[in-house]
Amino acid sequence: MKLGIEEIATYLPKNKISNFERLQEFDINHDFVNKKTGFKYLFKIDKKDQASDLCMGAFFNLEKNKKINLDDIGCCVVVTQNPDYNIPNVSSILHKKLKLNQNCSCFDISLGCSGYVYSLSIITSFMESNKISKGLLFTADPYSKIIDKNDKNTSLLFGDGASVTLISKNKKYETGKFSFGTKGENYNDLICKNKLSMNGRSVFNFSAKNIPVDIIKVLKLNNLKKDEIDLFILHQGSKLIIDTIRDKLNIDKRMLKFYASEYGNLISSSIPFALEKEILNPKNKNILISGFGVGFSWSSTLLKRL
Amino acid sequence: MKLGIEEIATYLPKNKISNFERLQEFDINHDFVNKKTGFKYLFKIDKKDQASDLCMGAFFNLEKNKKINLDDIGCCVVVTQNPDYNIPNVSSILHKKLKLNQNCSCFDISLGCSGYVYSLSIITSFMESNKISKGLLFTADPYSKIIDKNDKNTSLLFGDGASVTLISKNKKYETGKFSFGTKGENYNDLICKNKLSMNGRSVFNFSAKNIPVDIIKVLKLNNLKKDEIDLFILHQGSKLIIDTIRDKLNIDKRMLKFYASEYGNLISSSIPFALEKEILNPKNKNILISGFGVGFSWSSTLLKRL
Repeated sequence: MKLGIEEIATYLPKNKISNFERLQEFDINHDFVNKKTGFKYLFKIDKKDQASDLCMGAFFNLEKNKKINLDDIGCCVVVTQNPDYNIPNVSSILHKKLKLNQNCSCFDISLGCSGYVYSLSIITSFMESNKISKGLLFTADPYSKIIDKNDKNTSLLFGDGASVTLISKNKKYETGKFSFGTKGENYNDLICKNKLSMNGRSVFNFSAKNIPVDIIKVLKLNNLKKDEIDLFILHQGSKLIIDTIRDKLNIDKRMLKFYASEYGNLISSSIPFALEKEILNPKNKNILISGFGVGFSWSSTLLKRL
Repeated sequence: MKLGIEEIATYLPKNKISNFERLQEFDINHDFVNKKTGFKYLFKIDKKDQASDLCMGAFFNLEKNKKINLDDIGCCVVVTQNPDYNIPNVSSILHKKLKLNQNCSCFDISLGCSGYVYSLSIITSFMESNKISKGLLFTADPYSKIIDKNDKNTSLLFGDGASVTLISKNKKYETGKFSFGTKGENYNDLICKNKLSMNGRSVFNFSAKNIPVDIIKVLKLNNLKKDEIDLFILHQGSKLIIDTIRDKLNIDKRMLKFYASEYGNLISSSIPFALEKEILNPKNKNILISGFGVGFSWSSTLLKRL
């Protein structure tokens, strides 16, 4: 039995920061925010909060739309690079907080902006192979814990947030074939030794070069043409990278949007944040999603409405 | 096409420590080492070394027995809770070090002593679902980075080491059905805030209570009786836990052994270290493996010789 996406919910913490109030501090102008990064606002967790708290926020929002019988949850996966602790996995902490049942399998995956697409494949193939019919896929990566507030390359870009995707047989969308890729040679250009360090130009060039190629590849893998896709949802790295990839692929603005101006680059949560809204529209029959970043790593697939 | 285990290789760093030389320091006697922990020696990485260095050591040892065409590797997974950095994933660093190809998918899994069994399921189902025919599964968890040398509860137990398992169609062993379990309520009893902290009694009681039950469960899942299993390989948490579980299940000593006296508790590497030797013996047709620890989390499965 093939599994897919039944529901998605998201969560933003309360502390809202306006990047327009930081123009002088970073010696930038309105155009930098409006046209280059596109990120007008960012949200930050409280110091006392952790990845598992963000996940719980997303779960409470999921419950508002959907009654979840926690005893039915057979798998709980968390995608994060900023876990509460390195030991144990965040999914075990959620297992306690959600009072999941003893047979529920729990593990964390360490990936960045490619993490949601990757994990859709990892969790559905794991669940199908082990005949688990209902699972929760969380993304939560509080980069504010590792960002140097004075670093222009990162401080104006990344926001905190989380998502949860209910994976089940009662799916709205099923995944098609996946494409995965890695360029480990560049890993040093996006790394956290003490604080996050990013060579923005390197990440941009990598994305602008490889992601359009990968999108064409995943179209072919799924026997679809560009104009058979109703919506392209890309990792929201910046407005500029979204505009650049859209231009390269010659896709209409309404079909490849920038969603993140109100909350910033949410790492592995950026695609589910966009998806949460878009899957409510039944016209979105074929959605192509693509995530790319840390590693360098990327992954794309098709979401097909049922 | 079902995938399985083709080869396993392991690696220990050079620095060898004798626990017998630490009896006075910790106010313990020979019996504590010989009968309770069972760990006579431990190995420690150099300060400059990281998880990826341990993985490379295991890979070089794999290459001694088996010619690997790196261009054929379509998937690289690392199980660790002590990555080189939290960003990026260790598998991306290995991607660079091994010069893997651009289509190779790479991700890390955060799990402790249950990690190898879990990851066998995760990587094979992921690879089968994405039609990837050859992959590398690494385990490497250098706990010496997080251990307080003066903490009797941890300092005498954990050693550094790594393993690599070649997953392919040319398999020697295929996995059967898996059992997974989690008791998040206990996660606080084995946690790393700054340094590793362990409530040994809690971990022991959890293992002694749940693992025999899980072994019976996984036998049933695979339609086998206890006497149809040629070998039980359990996570090597201590000699005492191995002896206790063996007694509870009333299994012969030759069929459920303690392997780790010469190198200690290697976390996710402890099962592949034992397997490396045992899969050379063609008499080991049905091997039951079970990992348990951090989370609290456990996983068991059958390995069936082909």
